[in-house]
Amino acid sequence: MEFLPECEIKEECGVFGIFNPDGGDVAPSIYYGLSSLQHRGQESCGIAVCDTMGPKGNMNAHKGMGLVNEVFKEETLNNLHGNLGVGHVRYSTTGAANINNAQPLVLNYIKGTLALAHNGNLVNTAELRSELERTGAIFHTTTDSELIAYFIARERVNAHNVEEAILHTAKKIRGAYGLVIASPRKLIGVRDPLGLKPLCLGKRDGSYMIASESCALSAIGAEFIRDIRPGEIVTITKDGITSNCQLCQEKRAHCIFEYIYFARLDSTIDGINIYDARIRAGAALAAAYPVDADLVVGVPDSGIPAAKGYSEASGIPFGIAFYKNSYVGRTFIKPTQKERESSVRLKLNVLEPVVRGKRIILVDDSIVRGTTMANLIRMLKKAGAVSVHVRVSSPPFLYPCYFGTDIPSNKQLIASSHTADEIREIIGAESLGYMKLEDLQSMVGELPICRACLDGKYPMDITGHTEDKKQ
Amino acid sequence: MEFLPECEIKEECGVFGIFNPDGGDVAPSIYYGLSSLQHRGQESCGIAVCDTMGPKGNMNAHKGMGLVNEVFKEETLNNLHGNLGVGHVRYSTTGAANINNAQPLVLNYIKGTLALAHNGNLVNTAELRSELERTGAIFHTTTDSELIAYFIARERVNAHNVEEAILHTAKKIRGAYGLVIASPRKLIGVRDPLGLKPLCLGKRDGSYMIASESCALSAIGAEFIRDIRPGEIVTITKDGITSNCQLCQEKRAHCIFEYIYFARLDSTIDGINIYDARIRAGAALAAAYPVDADLVVGVPDSGIPAAKGYSEASGIPFGIAFYKNSYVGRTFIKPTQKERESSVRLKLNVLEPVVRGKRIILVDDSIVRGTTMANLIRMLKKAGAVSVHVRVSSPPFLYPCYFGTDIPSNKQLIASSHTADEIREIIGAESLGYMKLEDLQSMVGELPICRACLDGKYPMDITGHTEDKKQ
Amino acid sequence: MEFLPECEIKEECGVFGIFNPDGGDVAPSIYYGLSSLQHRGQESCGIAVCDTMGPKGNMNAHKGMGLVNEVFKEETLNNLHGNLGVGHVRYSTTGAANINNAQPLVLNYIKGTLALAHNGNLVNTAELRSELERTGAIFHTTTDSELIAYFIARERVNAHNVEEAILHTAKKIRGAYGLVIASPRKLIGVRDPLGLKPLCLGKRDGSYMIASESCALSAIGAEFIRDIRPGEIVTITKDGITSNCQLCQEKRAHCIFEYIYFARLDSTIDGINIYDARIRAGAALAAAYPVDADLVVGVPDSGIPAAKGYSEASGIPFGIAFYKNSYVGRTFIKPTQKERESSVRLKLNVLEPVVRGKRIILVDDSIVRGTTMANLIRMLKKAGAVSVHVRVSSPPFLYPCYFGTDIPSNKQLIASSHTADEIREIIGAESLGYMKLEDLQSMVGELPICRACLDGKYPMDITGHTEDKKQ
Amino acid sequence: MEFLPECEIKEECGVFGIFNPDGGDVAPSIYYGLSSLQHRGQESCGIAVCDTMGPKGNMNAHKGMGLVNEVFKEETLNNLHGNLGVGHVRYSTTGAANINNAQPLVLNYIKGTLALAHNGNLVNTAELRSELERTGAIFHTTTDSELIAYFIARERVNAHNVEEAILHTAKKIRGAYGLVIASPRKLIGVRDPLGLKPLCLGKRDGSYMIASESCALSAIGAEFIRDIRPGEIVTITKDGITSNCQLCQEKRAHCIFEYIYFARLDSTIDGINIYDARIRAGAALAAAYPVDADLVVGVPDSGIPAAKGYSEASGIPFGIAFYKNSYVGRTFIKPTQKERESSVRLKLNVLEPVVRGKRIILVDDSIVRGTTMANLIRMLKKAGAVSVHVRVSSPPFLYPCYFGTDIPSNKQLIASSHTADEIREIIGAESLGYMKLEDLQSMVGELPICRACLDGKYPMDITGHTEDKKQ
Repeated sequence: MEFLPECEIKEECGVFGIFNPDGGDVAPSIYYGLSSLQHRGQESCGIAVCDTMGPKGNMNAHKGMGLVNEVFKEETLNNLHGNLGVGHVRYSTTGAANINNAQPLVLNYIKGTLALAHNGNLVNTAELRSELERTGAIFHTTTDSELIAYFIARERVNAHNVEEAILHTAKKIRGAYGLVIASPRKLIGVRDPLGLKPLCLGKRDGSYMIASESCALSAIGAEFIRDIRPGEIVTITKDGITSNCQLCQEKRAHCIFEYIYFARLDSTIDGINIYDARIRAGAALAAAYPVDADLVVGVPDSGIPAAKGYSEASGIPFGIAFYKNSYVGRTFIKPTQKERESSVRLKLNVLEPVVRGKRIILVDDSIVRGTTMANLIRMLKKAGAVSVHVRVSSPPFLYPCYFGTDIPSNKQLIASSHTADEIREIIGAESLGYMKLEDLQSMVGELPICRACLDGKYPMDITGHTEDKKQ
Repeated sequence: MEFLPECEIKEECGVFGIFNPDGGDVAPSIYYGLSSLQHRGQESCGIAVCDTMGPKGNMNAHKGMGLVNEVFKEETLNNLHGNLGVGHVRYSTTGAANINNAQPLVLNYIKGTLALAHNGNLVNTAELRSELERTGAIFHTTTDSELIAYFIARERVNAHNVEEAILHTAKKIRGAYGLVIASPRKLIGVRDPLGLKPLCLGKRDGSYMIASESCALSAIGAEFIRDIRPGEIVTITKDGITSNCQLCQEKRAHCIFEYIYFARLDSTIDGINIYDARIRAGAALAAAYPVDADLVVGVPDSGIPAAKGYSEASGIPFGIAFYKNSYVGRTFIKPTQKERESSVRLKLNVLEPVVRGKRIILVDDSIVRGTTMANLIRMLKKAGAVSVHVRVSSPPFLYPCYFGTDIPSNKQLIASSHTADEIREIIGAESLGYMKLEDLQSMVGELPICRACLDGKYPMDITGHTEDKKQ
Repeated sequence: MEFLPECEIKEECGVFGIFNPDGGDVAPSIYYGLSSLQHRGQESCGIAVCDTMGPKGNMNAHKGMGLVNEVFKEETLNNLHGNLGVGHVRYSTTGAANINNAQPLVLNYIKGTLALAHNGNLVNTAELRSELERTGAIFHTTTDSELIAYFIARERVNAHNVEEAILHTAKKIRGAYGLVIASPRKLIGVRDPLGLKPLCLGKRDGSYMIASESCALSAIGAEFIRDIRPGEIVTITKDGITSNCQLCQEKRAHCIFEYIYFARLDSTIDGINIYDARIRAGAALAAAYPVDADLVVGVPDSGIPAAKGYSEASGIPFGIAFYKNSYVGRTFIKPTQKERESSVRLKLNVLEPVVRGKRIILVDDSIVRGTTMANLIRMLKKAGAVSVHVRVSSPPFLYPCYFGTDIPSNKQLIASSHTADEIREIIGAESLGYMKLEDLQSMVGELPICRACLDGKYPMDITGHTEDKKQ
Repeated sequence: MEFLPECEIKEECGVFGIFNPDGGDVAPSIYYGLSSLQHRGQESCGIAVCDTMGPKGNMNAHKGMGLVNEVFKEETLNNLHGNLGVGHVRYSTTGAANINNAQPLVLNYIKGTLALAHNGNLVNTAELRSELERTGAIFHTTTDSELIAYFIARERVNAHNVEEAILHTAKKIRGAYGLVIASPRKLIGVRDPLGLKPLCLGKRDGSYMIASESCALSAIGAEFIRDIRPGEIVTITKDGITSNCQLCQEKRAHCIFEYIYFARLDSTIDGINIYDARIRAGAALAAAYPVDADLVVGVPDSGIPAAKGYSEASGIPFGIAFYKNSYVGRTFIKPTQKERESSVRLKLNVLEPVVRGKRIILVDDSIVRGTTMANLIRMLKKAGAVSVHVRVSSPPFLYPCYFGTDIPSNKQLIASSHTADEIREIIGAESLGYMKLEDLQSMVGELPICRACLDGKYPMDITGHTEDKKQ
């Protein structure tokens, strides 16, 4: 993915929940789990915990703007006592950061307290919001997640338990969601019926966890049990796990961008390992766009696995062409326009001995504005590369996503206003090949996918969505 | 009032609202207004503003824990654009500070956005909360203020305008309240029918303000127009001021503690100037407890005016006996128990030349645990005072307040377990006189007052109150 | 003293040293001592401690920009272990704050470590600096204090002990100084031969303290023993106190501004109590400028004692005419020029019932630009004062101070370009009287004073001073 | 290199200087240069600049604890005006961070101001310090760098210019140093006669830079001109570059650890490219320890290049076996001992599809305590690796370094108390091979190296060094 000064495809969110029936504090595990999901959101984060043996309304929470290790200091973490909890990381926006929208939401309602963390986006928000407003609702946030919480509270009034209220709510809401909910005695996970958003179940000793990705389970030494099924509601109490699959259905549509870009390399989602998927993307590129060259290199870090896949499939050696300065991060002072010309190598620098005299195949997972790619090609050639052939492991994304992914707008996307050959010309490459739409499926085998951002075919009716209300 | 390590009577809250039809930013005026109401709450504060010419939902707010000048830095303040706004200061608690409960509440509802700041406490919260919960409400805070906002939103669905919704809400809620509300085109002020909490109206050039106390008007150079009438709803729009007095009633009960302790010396509330009231308190003490002495001195800063009043009434000279170190504040590291003995003079020190060889009358507005008073008397005598006669300008407060004042509990109050003579003995005074209940009225002339904390006679039914839910 | 937007006379510095032979930590006592000297400097502060039983080079220090309670948090303070230490508060400047110049200076030299805190200013700095530079010295700060430390280190090479080195150094330096020095086994206090700067000795249990003012002793419950004699070097070790008075001399020149303005009301310096001195100043004004009036009031806080003195001498009643908002402090966002007109009452507000219909005598300790005074008079008259007679308890200061006091420059001083009558006209007073030079001595009895800033007669040769090098 | 909870070999420092004769501000370039040298020191950093057209004593500096992007915010950077400047990054210690020792040192002396940044360590510090102390020197820091500055100041008194003073100083000091010095009109770079520390010269437009590594030149778009010669003093003024090579000598001893570990992959030092050197290290390991295996993988990030070299030399495929979580950084809350067992995968996680069923060769650049390596091997085997053969691209380091490298002590080093076979057993590898001492030279061709930490043969007399005084 591209570097400053370009815009990026932004991750949506990550959620993590854990229940420890032994009574030990879970906040540190949530902290480590969220740290492993940090790639899914860097804007804000939060943790809410409660003690299942304590009084029902006693939910402790801490939220803040920034990374997990910025928001949580040792003292804060140590003061979050409780053996049940949920956590959330939220994506970073360029605009005004807003602590109000940080999650988990912690709410009081007729049956006590509820903490809710949500990854995804609904598409019938206008209708949902209007229904609530007409009965006098007030909203503290601008998130879809608050709508979900509201309906759970309403349904709870006449339901036998919170799971039933959640089931009724799930029937009303349409869209993408991975939810983890802490009801004072229960941890509940909910996944949307199409499986647009990932959610999985893990175990360590007697504790159970629900997380957006399996890497969060690995990070805390837990065992991956299985993915939450699309449409499934999983409830974990001191008596064990129960599952409700009333909303499970045949039709599925797993977001292809998890495999192309979002998910972490060491996660496995719905049976497909992310690393494997990206290796296969590289192989598909090698088959679609063969070229006589000396070396395959990836743009760090996002292009590395597909480059490896291209190398393995083509037999052309794999190389490391760039050094990435990991200290150039979020809080780095950006060069001014004038300085920028002389500082393209701040974040990435070419390893000259690797590329000198070589014909290079350069792989990345996407091209947004093309500026970074153009810079990299210029750097490679200045360092002695004879030619640079660019391969992109995703098709151009041309349609908005209504399910929680922040695809740059058409104006920012070079692919929406230029042909592939014009782009090739602009970035200064000898050749350019985008992943073909028809090859995309090969990344994930038989898995049914949503690729609406690439082909405009949405897996559900999207009229009624409210834009700019992502969480 | 007493100093660390004693507990204090805590202020409730202060509110400030302003509408500038000319379109200029009002955030600086709110900042200065809140700074002048800071004595009413030091825990948290906030400002919400909107532009009456802009889109209706566009309410900008900033809230934080701490004093006004800690929470608002120049940049934050300058980013709060809008010509209509409300602000709030909240009292300081010893327990866990909670940003969630900071005000103004900023809410979205069927008609757009609403910002609400509330001083006071309701007594039928249990019933109100239960009514809302049964229809599926969710609560983000534990404040009464959120209940009020909820009912306004509900009533608004079928009301002609927000004032009507507020009127219907005011009919449902019982308790003490001074409210300022920014509805995107209007500034609204509401005062409880008994007038328990103060609220007044001011004007500067074309702008109108509503504030808890008149000192906030003086501070920004505005002119005091009048007190909001108990039960009145005042609405300010670009077309001027309108008033609804449907809930105005004969019976009134103005909180006596505003005059004894809460309000600022330079404010005038319901026609009674605070300085004058305290001077009269001192005079009443002089009449009730005359004593042959050389000097009348006050405990800084709370006891000074009553000491002045005692002096004027008795003819005994007024003196300044203590130096107060204003750098010993909120964030000061408290002495340990061991250090405490040697550091009683950290905050207040005796001016020896003033007291040496003198018979002293020492005046304060209250005694909580008695420790500070005992220390001061010891200091005076060590500095050469011949005798110390203590006069307290309030009767012992013996009953809980349900209207938003944080009276220390019986356990902390020395007066609830000891006779006046025992207290005199404990603090080491030659004589001790508390303001007599029957003299209290003399502070405020004919003004009908609530003095339930002193005599247990509550001006309304208080069953149904929920404790520990103050804002 | 005057308030924003005027400039102020700035304090120089305060020093505090303590030695506890019992081995207990002294950092908390230094913290409380410095808090009591905070009025002497608000720019930066620091504490250095060492353990007299530990290795000689082990000096722990913490310094920072800001007030004592901003720079020292509980954890920092608790980590400063040692039974011997010195502390420093430095004045606040409007310009660039500079942590480099914060004190105490902590230095390594041939005999180990030394910590030094200095109040005052030398006048032969150019000569001293040049002598050091010519032998290859390097300077980390721009302070006179570093020059003193340097000479001590040089003299120490051939001296028998650090006191001898200090004595030799004291013979070379000319100017004003109160020094506290922690040499790993000793606490040493040094006062300049003219006694320009104050320094005193105290005791609590087995511990000894040296402080700029006696109020710092009171604050920690210590007993005042005596002032350090001008020219005296006092050394405190586990074996007790020794004194060297080789540099003591007949001629003395105690800074009059300590009595007029700098020192705290509850301090006693060189036998003169500050409160008493200011009462006498008021009496002198009453004698010099009698007027028929109803009330004497002071500008808070600096004008209060002299107002009291005027009242007592004249028999005209003393009143409290202003409420001072103590929340309007250092970090307060200043009103813009436009807002200023409407916010003159932010910091001080008139108590109308006190002044209405009265002929007022208004007392302050100085007038700098006159703007604040003009505002106060306008406020008084708007509140109904019939007339306002201004009395100033110091003569106009017209000459620069080279001894460490930051007198505003001529351009800022209204008195340097206007006659008293012109000033009266400008501020809008009915009459104006400055303390007469010939009455000044009456404040302090027989005490020989330096009043060079008032009459230009410096008590020593000041050629060779380097301006803008204050500490 | 190893991860928490192991200790690390710590970098020494990095320096950067720049002179822009056109007069434009250089602070941003220093910021970017230091960011590229951040791997050389994370404890503290600083920038000092001056305007060569301005007054001579006007040096602006800012220093702080932490990373470059933590210490410098936009406002701070923008306030550092000047066209000449030096910067410094300092290594991170586990112990008490000390702002006093942060660099550049900014000093006043006889000829004005001097800013100095130093990478390296002297070995005759005791003698140098004693010489200074005996003439009365005072020290504000505990760094060797202050000694160097002192001697420059002393020599300057009688020298014709600062270069001459530096030359005399260089004759007195012994040890390792790369120095950049800003004298108000000149930028000067100095390298120790053995060339232990790197230092190089670059150019961009009319500006010249001196930096510890060439990567800092690349980062700002500058051209590498040449390495500063061992013993050379380079002076850059508005009139161009002059060089003094009086101290240049035949004998050289370049630190081998720059090539093994310290320097950045994209730097070239003394003609040897770091990436190339590490590729050759891998090749040497492949030749020395061949093994029948399926995949060569490196420990991120330090082991990757040598793994690549091993792969290329052996023909065994290169793979990416680990995902590294870049959000687990300096401020991360470390797991407790109990949590640690379940959280070994927090920082690094295995990519299971890569290693399953494979015989793995695992390459890293060093082994300190062995704990991390043991964890990685356990992770690999749990993920299905059939066998793990460890190759280490440096010999065990067994001797202390006195030249500024923080080699862990013997107690921490597993190699100092165990044979290679014992270590193999402890970490659970099938085989273990350390780089052979005799192969080391192959990394850097003919370049004369210092490898004292590996064989104990120091390139100069080291008696007289003072331990624990690194900068």
